[in-house]
Order: sequence, then structure tokens, then C-alpha cells
Amino acid sequence: MAEALVLEEKGVLRLRDIALEDKLGPNDVRVAIHTVGICGSDVHYYKHGAIGPFIVREPMVLGHEASGTIVEIGDAVCTLKPGDRVCMEPGIPDPLSRAARLGQYNIDPAVRFWATPPVHGCLTASVVHPAAYTFRLPDTVSFAEAAMVEPLAVGVHACVKARLQPGDVCLVTGAGPIGIVTALSALASGASQVFISDFSAPKLAIAGQYDRITPVDLAKEKPADVIAARCGSGWGVDVTFEASGFETAYDDALACTRPGGRLVLVGMPPRKVAFDIVAAQAREISIETVFRYAHVYDRAIALIASGSIDLKPLISATFPFREAVAAFERAAEGRPEDVKLQITL
Amino acid sequence: MAEALVLEEKGVLRLRDIALEDKLGPNDVRVAIHTVGICGSDVHYYKHGAIGPFIVREPMVLGHEASGTIVEIGDAVCTLKPGDRVCMEPGIPDPLSRAARLGQYNIDPAVRFWATPPVHGCLTASVVHPAAYTFRLPDTVSFAEAAMVEPLAVGVHACVKARLQPGDVCLVTGAGPIGIVTALSALASGASQVFISDFSAPKLAIAGQYDRITPVDLAKEKPADVIAARCGSGWGVDVTFEASGFETAYDDALACTRPGGRLVLVGMPPRKVAFDIVAAQAREISIETVFRYAHVYDRAIALIASGSIDLKPLISATFPFREAVAAFERAAEGRPEDVKLQITL
Amino acid sequence: MAEALVLEEKGVLRLRDIALEDKLGPNDVRVAIHTVGICGSDVHYYKHGAIGPFIVREPMVLGHEASGTIVEIGDAVCTLKPGDRVCMEPGIPDPLSRAARLGQYNIDPAVRFWATPPVHGCLTASVVHPAAYTFRLPDTVSFAEAAMVEPLAVGVHACVKARLQPGDVCLVTGAGPIGIVTALSALASGASQVFISDFSAPKLAIAGQYDRITPVDLAKEKPADVIAARCGSGWGVDVTFEASGFETAYDDALACTRPGGRLVLVGMPPRKVAFDIVAAQAREISIETVFRYAHVYDRAIALIASGSIDLKPLISATFPFREAVAAFERAAEGRPEDVKLQITL
Amino acid sequence: MAEALVLEEKGVLRLRDIALEDKLGPNDVRVAIHTVGICGSDVHYYKHGAIGPFIVREPMVLGHEASGTIVEIGDAVCTLKPGDRVCMEPGIPDPLSRAARLGQYNIDPAVRFWATPPVHGCLTASVVHPAAYTFRLPDTVSFAEAAMVEPLAVGVHACVKARLQPGDVCLVTGAGPIGIVTALSALASGASQVFISDFSAPKLAIAGQYDRITPVDLAKEKPADVIAARCGSGWGVDVTFEASGFETAYDDALACTRPGGRLVLVGMPPRKVAFDIVAAQAREISIETVFRYAHVYDRAIALIASGSIDLKPLISATFPFREAVAAFERAAEGRPEDVKLQITL
Repeated sequence: MAEALVLEEKGVLRLRDIALEDKLGPNDVRVAIHTVGICGSDVHYYKHGAIGPFIVREPMVLGHEASGTIVEIGDAVCTLKPGDRVCMEPGIPDPLSRAARLGQYNIDPAVRFWATPPVHGCLTASVVHPAAYTFRLPDTVSFAEAAMVEPLAVGVHACVKARLQPGDVCLVTGAGPIGIVTALSALASGASQVFISDFSAPKLAIAGQYDRITPVDLAKEKPADVIAARCGSGWGVDVTFEASGFETAYDDALACTRPGGRLVLVGMPPRKVAFDIVAAQAREISIETVFRYAHVYDRAIALIASGSIDLKPLISATFPFREAVAAFERAAEGRPEDVKLQITL
Repeated sequence: MAEALVLEEKGVLRLRDIALEDKLGPNDVRVAIHTVGICGSDVHYYKHGAIGPFIVREPMVLGHEASGTIVEIGDAVCTLKPGDRVCMEPGIPDPLSRAARLGQYNIDPAVRFWATPPVHGCLTASVVHPAAYTFRLPDTVSFAEAAMVEPLAVGVHACVKARLQPGDVCLVTGAGPIGIVTALSALASGASQVFISDFSAPKLAIAGQYDRITPVDLAKEKPADVIAARCGSGWGVDVTFEASGFETAYDDALACTRPGGRLVLVGMPPRKVAFDIVAAQAREISIETVFRYAHVYDRAIALIASGSIDLKPLISATFPFREAVAAFERAAEGRPEDVKLQITL
Repeated sequence: MAEALVLEEKGVLRLRDIALEDKLGPNDVRVAIHTVGICGSDVHYYKHGAIGPFIVREPMVLGHEASGTIVEIGDAVCTLKPGDRVCMEPGIPDPLSRAARLGQYNIDPAVRFWATPPVHGCLTASVVHPAAYTFRLPDTVSFAEAAMVEPLAVGVHACVKARLQPGDVCLVTGAGPIGIVTALSALASGASQVFISDFSAPKLAIAGQYDRITPVDLAKEKPADVIAARCGSGWGVDVTFEASGFETAYDDALACTRPGGRLVLVGMPPRKVAFDIVAAQAREISIETVFRYAHVYDRAIALIASGSIDLKPLISATFPFREAVAAFERAAEGRPEDVKLQITL
Repeated sequence: MAEALVLEEKGVLRLRDIALEDKLGPNDVRVAIHTVGICGSDVHYYKHGAIGPFIVREPMVLGHEASGTIVEIGDAVCTLKPGDRVCMEPGIPDPLSRAARLGQYNIDPAVRFWATPPVHGCLTASVVHPAAYTFRLPDTVSFAEAAMVEPLAVGVHACVKARLQPGDVCLVTGAGPIGIVTALSALASGASQVFISDFSAPKLAIAGQYDRITPVDLAKEKPADVIAARCGSGWGVDVTFEASGFETAYDDALACTRPGGRLVLVGMPPRKVAFDIVAAQAREISIETVFRYAHVYDRAIALIASGSIDLKPLISATFPFREAVAAFERAAEGRPEDVKLQITL
């Protein structure tokens, strides 16, 4: 039995003891949790009890963006040791699955992902995790930053898929947490400048704090116009990252991407989208779709450690574990100026 | 003045004399036309007077799928000579345009394309064409086959974009002329087998004549079921080519493509399509869009010459030039058993 | 104890009983061996007792090109069943290794490979093997062909790495078994024609039996001249596969590959090679190196089953198991007309 | 007649009047030269009178790294105007050549390149140049930086070829001007850190001024050891850029690159190199070769303008045009602390 933040059912969160699996296998490590970020999906389960086909039918511990310290290692583990500061990938694939063997473990349909029913999350004192998906932190990366590696990994993975080239000009549609980390990832991956569009002035203000990010306020201007004014001609950006899931963003994306450019679909729209295929064809735009991430945790950590990506301005508030329910209530408010709320244990 | 098949206006075709530009530049060749295939776009201009933004406002010569014999060459031409049997790419880009310099001349917005208003086509005795877009034929490739290189090039270009790997299993949605040449291109590009789906039994019967092509009759069965029955498991095909532009084909495509597979959008739907982005993301499907073709005419000719692709079963009927209007009337009927009608001069 | 073909030490082969590990794990299958091909590496161990750092210090069973029938399956195996006709990848990686997780299990330094000291091979009645590296055969693929999948996989893997495009013209330097299967793989992967060069007329005669393969006799002619005569101009081939490891082949490869083309290094030269880097740079040739294969067994089997690749002309002679030593003696003679010798159990 | 820095013959440089072609074509611009950098190739022609097959047989103006101001434009030029500050690509391809049409104009064998016999360079008051290869400068990029775009372009092009991924760790062998700009390009293209190796302590000191660049002194240590000590394990770097042309660097490159990594050959060795092909194969290293650059001038300018790349520490000294001969004499000394010497007009 261990204390954990338990989603009892839709709308009912409780900090209470719960029985959790904690057997340490030979390839596993045990990690004392230090910081956990609150993700939009956690909040969605809290408010709606489900995301698509994933329905909370039994009490489930929330949380999947975590950092901590190793306290015990399995017999076969030789790459990590007790005392190592780490962060963890929340998805555990079957290494023998067909997708995993191809190197694409993120799209293994059998992957077990923290805080996705029926798998428990990590908002509790300690977890057991495979060493292969546990990453040591350099001294210069704080626990707070390390708990941001999970969302950042989405942005870095999107950039890997984008096959970014040095000097690319990019557009990110959507200035939520994922949009902003995608913009930062693009700049760290070779982009020379990034436009980011949203209807929310507070979100744009946060993104606009960063050098080389140009906010585009959709309430006032069209991305294609801003890009043409700044870059000249109607050629367009090299890469667009769609990070909103919002229906009109797809038209902006197609209008703004150059002939031969790439469009990376990161945002997950709630339903089918009316997509202008002929507009994409006329420019032979390549479209990549992304699902979480694979093989990028070490890359994301290296980019934080090297100073290429600064996540600190995105941590809006931090709560102690005993106030975890209050933290979720604030997250559920959806204040536009809140990028990331974190809980420390 | 030269005799040509002229679309006077929507619905009015006439074989008559018309004044055509025929100045031979230093990098041009003059080609006596031998065979011209009728494309769906020719028929569409005939019946509707327009395709999207391209409107027939002046009399226009039709035809863009052509083969013939060189009768004269410009001063700077050293790769071709009079007497050479050739076929021609119908699109002439500006070699100094930004897209052309990047190697993607097909998406140069300023490309001039035969029989696309206001540019005349090639259904006339001879044409002047840049040597760079004129391709010599091996003796083993007939004029009739050579006039099929244009539509075949669409399929070959789709396969280049698909990054096919040897042994790939493919699905083509749509068994029209482009669907069939795409299936043949896939087999010649390394696919081990191809499924092709359509609602038309006669079209499927033509496709099904070929070894390694399995027809899927949408009136009776779902592609995903046929593929699972033949290939085992619900893994899916490596590459899907959408070649119908038909709304439900996009769902079939997403349902049938394996995790990490590729979807190539060849068909041009008449309006926006309701596209299931989340389904594509869950399998991280890469989506390529294609517009005509670039750098594949020599490849297509080589594959015909080597015997890898046999187009002869697709030539349904041949008409002499004086019956060109009758040929278009038959094409306008849209008989499902007609794949390609050709006119010889 | 089981009867096996044992290499006791350099030059000493014996058919005798030996104790072999045969515990069936939950993810394993037990396969009754039907046919085993003799590879050049088997012969090399027989004649020299070592290949590079791999030294035969204990008696070792030879053989790694095998087909057979499943006789028992582990508890967790659901993709195969007793009675299935199969062939097996001889290399078993650690699925948790860094290379394997990236999808490149063939370059996991810890891979255990049949008949590579100290790992026993498969020239014995039955073997235990992971189901993940055991592949079911279609009815149309014989045991003899299936035992050729191992060398064919090298050629198919080389073609995957080559990123072949439909209609490519290729050169293979070296007409040994690997050169020939690479040429066949290239033709099945979209090449329109393949030139193959060697000093051995008998080897070239075997390769030249196949359509679309043009032998180049190095005793009489230079590949660059033959290619220019056949293809026109000095542009060169799209892809060269070096499959000889012979020093002068590297100069031929560089002289024959077109600007922007690819060179795939398959052959393993016995020592460092004097390589003309500036010649490669002047044409910006991309060079891929290959080591065995990964993820291509199912592809190779599909290409045999579909009729794209016909291996039957390459099986030069077949010996019963009791004559296995005689088979190796003939293989050790190195008759140029022998492509592949096989042993049936 | 115009005053220019003329290489009369090997070892004889003179500032004197010379007749130069200066006819302005419709697609050309006339540029008043402001700054010209001295390249190692200029110095090589000065000292040796030839580079490989390129022999100075007639007096030739030197210089190809230039920036300036447009003073006149051809009739068809619409993207530039008099007064625009610009820099120029020194190579002028034939846009109709086979390589140029494929988008690889840098490997068009017919390219005309400034200060490569028999083509004059740009160390004179003004030049006529195609608008397509002339690039406008943002206000924030100085003429001195702009005259560095030419060598920087080599590094950026190498990074494009390297298909760098965010967070990659890189090694550059050689800390000359090209090695350093390649290292800076890698950091701007997503690398998290770069090791750079050389025997010259002064060169390493210059490279080591930059954040995230770790010098490796070959007189004292081996790159593989330094990398293992800093990065842990013997896995190796993701990408190695060979930028020295020095024979032993190729062994370092192979020893340091991870399984599945990439090796980009930038340096041009004076003769064939003994290359360990089997070492490359054992890790399936992909090898890219580069020749100058294509399509990267705008990218390089954007990376300077955005602050991603700071070239100012590399400009060692600047000479007025009347001291151009003295500038070359200093360049010919080859002081290790001199990265780039420039001449202003």
C-alpha cells in the first residue's frame, strides 16, 4: 500500500493509499518520484473519465510526466545505479512486438502507458520501471526540467519526423504547451525562426518571450499574411507543425507551407477534419503524423543540458503533493497563462 | 496554319485548321506526332469547359499524351537527332524558377502544360518542344506504348515518393487508368503483391488480368478483410496508393496501412475530404502527396523496354486522326471497360 | 546428443554425435532441419579455422543457411505451429540492446550467429530457435529455395539500403553467389537492368542466364566502357553494389556511378582499401555499408513466392547429410561453376 | 579595363588593370564588391599554380568569397534592386544540365566557378552575376560576415547531407576554417555538442572559444577516449564530419562513429586513402560525400542573422584592397591562429 493521487471515477480525485504492483524485475529500477507534471490528458480523464476508447473503469493513479532518484536496481541493470537522478518514459512496449522490433516502439498497439486505463500512473512515492526507459540526468538539469522532458519529447520527436534542415523557417499552429515545446524544439533542431499562431493572447505572450519566435494572433491576422510580410513572396515556410487539433488550423497549414515542404500533424482533433487534399498535392507537401515519441528522451535531455532549450519559463506553478488535488483543480480551470503545473513529492 | 483537334468551347470539338506557334528555338526539337492518348482531363474540358481554376476561354487544341518522330532540331541540341522516335513530357517549367532549381519542376506554379488553358495541346501534325523534355524510345517500345508513358509516369512518380522497399505489399484504391498504372508501377518497383479496390467489376477484371494483382470488389467486400485473410493478422499493407479521389477510400486507406507505413495521395477529390487524422497518427503513417511527375519519363520508358511493365492490355481502341471527334465521344461515354483510347496521326 | 557436422579444428570435419543445447523457451520453436546450404564462411572456417577475430577454439557445428519444419512450439508462441514449413535467420540479437531497440538488430555487437565461434550452427537434425526469427514458407517455396533465403537476404538488404528507384540502372562488381543474388534483388526491387562484372567467365555465364543482367568480363573490357556503350553518355549507373571485396572493384565502382548516385559496399575486403575519396566527392556519391541484414526475411520470401526472384538456377548440387563432408570438400575446391551446394537431412 | 588582383603565374601576384567581361544579361545583376575573403584554394593557386587538373595557364583574377552592393540589374530581374546588400555563390551552373535539373547543380561538371582556371575571380571593383545566385542580406549581417557565407555554406551543406537529428553528438576531425564552420553549423543544426580534433593547439583554442565545442588535441589524446570519457560507453557519436583530408583522421572517424551513424567526408585528401571498409560495415555507417554546396546560401544567411552562428571570432585580420598582395603573403605563411583573412574594396 502506498499513498497516491487516485482518480476514483470521473470528477472524483483523492489522495489515498492504494495497492500498487512493485516487484522489481532483473531489468528494472525503482525510482523515488520527485516531480510530476500535470498533462492535459490527466485533466481530461479527471473531467471526462475517458479519452476516446480509453475509459476509467477502476480507480487509477494519475500522472505520467515524472522525474526522481533511483533507489534500487535489478540484477541485470548495469547502466544505472542507486542515487542517479533520472526521468522516465511513461510508455513500456513489448520489445518483441513487430513495431518495437522495427524500432517504432511507440506505435506498438500493446504498449502500456502510465495513467492510461487500466495502467496506473506515477503520482505516488515510488515506481518500478524498466531501466531501458529510464534516463540519467546531467547535474545541470533540474528535477522540474526533467519532469518536462515528457511533453518536450513530443516536440523533439515531431522535429525528427520533420527532417528539419538548418535554417528552415517554421510555423506552429497552436500555442498550448505542446505547440510551445514544438517551437522550442524546432529552434534547437536547426530552424532559424518560428511563427506560432493562436487565438489566445496570453499563450502567444508566453511563446513570444523567446527569441526567434514570432506570435501570430489569429484574432487579428492570418498566418499567411504575416509570413509573406516577414519572409517576402508567397513561397511559404519549410515546415508547419499543426499542434492545435483545431479545424481551421489545417487550412492555415496548407496555405503557409512551401512547395515541397513538410507538414507534421501533432495535434489530435476530436473528430475527422475536412482536409484540402488538392491544396496539399499542388505543392506536393509531405505529411508526417506523430504519436507520442520514440528514441528521443536522451536527445531532449541533451538539448536542455546544452542550453539549447530553456523550459523554465514554462513552469507556471508548483504544488506540494498534499495539495495535488488543488493542483488538478487549477489545471482544470484551464487558465491561459498556465503552461505547466507541477507537483513535488 | 495546321489541322488540329480544337475544343472551340465547352461541348464543341472540331477538326480544323488553326494558327499555332511553331518557332524552333536553339534548345528545341520539332516532332511529327504519331499517337496521342485521350486523358480524363481532355474529356473533362470537352464536357465541362473547365477544370477548377483552368477555364477554356479561347479555342484550345486538346491532347497531351503523345509520341512521334523528330523531324528537326535546334542549333544547341546534341542529345537527339531527326528520325529519333520519342515521347514528350507535356509540362514545360521555367528552369530558373525556385521549384525547378530545387529539382521539383512539376510544382513550379508557372509550368506551362499542354491542353491546360491557355496552352494548346498536341493533337496536330507536329509540335515544337524543349529537347530536355523529349525522350528517345528504344526500338522495343511502340508508339502506342510511348503515348502511355504520360499516365504511367504518374504511377512511377507515386512509387518514387512511396519509397517502396523490396517485397512490400500494397493497396491501390481505385481501378481507373491511374490506379492500374500505379499498381503496375508498384509491382515493377519492388512490391511483391498489390491489392486493388473499386466498385466497378469491369475495371477490376482488367486489373485482375495481371499476375500479382488481387482485385477487391467494394460492392462485396472490405479491403481490410481481404488483406487480413490473405496476409494474416491485422498488420496491414506497407504502402497504400489512393487513386480514386473517392471519399470513402480515405478510410479504407487508413484502415489498411500498417504501423509506420506510407499513404500516397494520387487521386484528386472534387472537394475537401473528411480525414481521420487520429487514425493516421495512431499508426504514424507518412502521407505523401503527388502532383503529376518529375524525373521519371526515362525510368518509365526503361521499365516498359525491360518488360517489367506491360501496357498493351490497357489500350482499348485506336482511332485515326480524322475520327478524333468520334474518339472523344466514345471517351465521353465513360465505358468501364475502356482504359485508354488513342488517336494516330 | 545429436548427430551433427562438426568442425573439430581447422581442416578436420566429422559427422558425429555432439551434445547441443536444446531447451525450448516460451518464445522458441523447435525445427526439424530439412536443407542447409554451404556458405563461403563455413568453408573458410573449415580451411582456415578462423575469420578475423572469430577463431574456432572448440569443436563447432557448421551451417547457417537452413530450412525445415516446426515440430514443437513454446508456450508463448502464437504465430507458428507444428507442421509449418519455415526458414530461420541465423543471428539472434538481444532485443534490449541499444542497436536492436533502434531497429538495427543486425549491428548489435552481442548478436549470437550460427556457426560463428563459439556458437554452434544448424547442420544437425533439429534446432531450437526464437519464433521471432523463424519465418513460415508459402507452399510455392521449396525447402531448397528457403535454404537460399539467407544469402538472398544479404542482397535484399543491400537493395533496401540502396534506396532503389524504379527504372534504376545498376552495376554489381563481383559475380560470386552474393553478387548474383544482389543483382537478382536489384531487378526485383525496381532496377530496369543490371551490369555485373567479374574476371571469371563461368560465373558470368551463370549470371548472364538471367534476363536484364549484362555480364562484363573484366579480362576483356572495362565496366565504364560497357555501360557508356549501352546507356550512352558518361553519366553512369544510378547504383553500384560492390560485392567482391576486390581492390580494383572500388575504382570501377567510383568510375561508373552517376553524379548523386549511390554505392553500396557489400563485399568485405581482407584489408584496408585504397579509396579515391575525391572521386566520390566530385559526384557526391552516397555510400552505404551493409552488415548481414535486418527485417528482410519476409521480404525475400515474398519475392521468391511471387516469382520475382528465381533462385533455382543457382543450386548447383545437393548432397545427403551422410555425404556432408564430401559436400564441404567439393565446396572447398571452389569450382567457379558452383554457386550454391546444399545438404539435405 | 578594371583594377584587379591578378595571379600572373605561379608565385606572381599583381594589383593591375585587366580586361574583364562585364556584359549585363537580362537575368544578371552588377555588384560593387565590398569584402572578399581569402580561401585556401586562392593561396594554393598562388603558391602552386594549380589544383589537381585545374592549371593556371593565363593570368587569372583571384577571390571567390565576396559580398557587396547591387548597382545595376538586368531587365528580367525582379527579386533584387540597386542598393541591396548581397553576397554571391561563386559557382554558376548550366540550369539545363542533367545535374542541375535534378536539383544538384553543384555537381554539374560544367559549372563555372570563380577563380578556378580559366574563370576569373572577384577581387576587383565590380562583377556581373546571375540574380539566381545572388542573395540579399538582412541589415543585421555585416559585409564581413557575408563574405564568410561561402565557407560557411560548405559546413551547412555538410549538415544537410548528414541528416542531423536534434540532440546528436558529433565529431569534426580537423580544426581548420572548414572544420570550425562545420562544427558551428552542426550546433546550429541540432547537435547538442561537438568534439573537434586537430594536432594544432592554436586552432583548437579558437574552436574551443565556442560553447558546446570540445577540443581534442591529437598530440595528447585519442578522440575515441575523450568521447567515451565524456559520453560514457563505447557507443560513439551520431555523426562524424571529416574535415581534414588527413589520412589518420579516417581511422578516428570510423572508431568514433556509433552503429548506424553517419560519416560525412568534407576534407579532400591529396591522394587515395587506406580506408577500413570492414570497420564501416560492422557498424553499418552511412557515408556521405560533399562537394561545395547547393541550396544553402539562404539557410546560412538566416542562421547568421538569427544569431545561431557567430562568425565574427573567425575573422582574424582585414586588409585594404591596395594591400591585397600583402594579405596573400600573410595567408601564404599559414599562421595557425589565422582563420580567415579578408580584403575590403
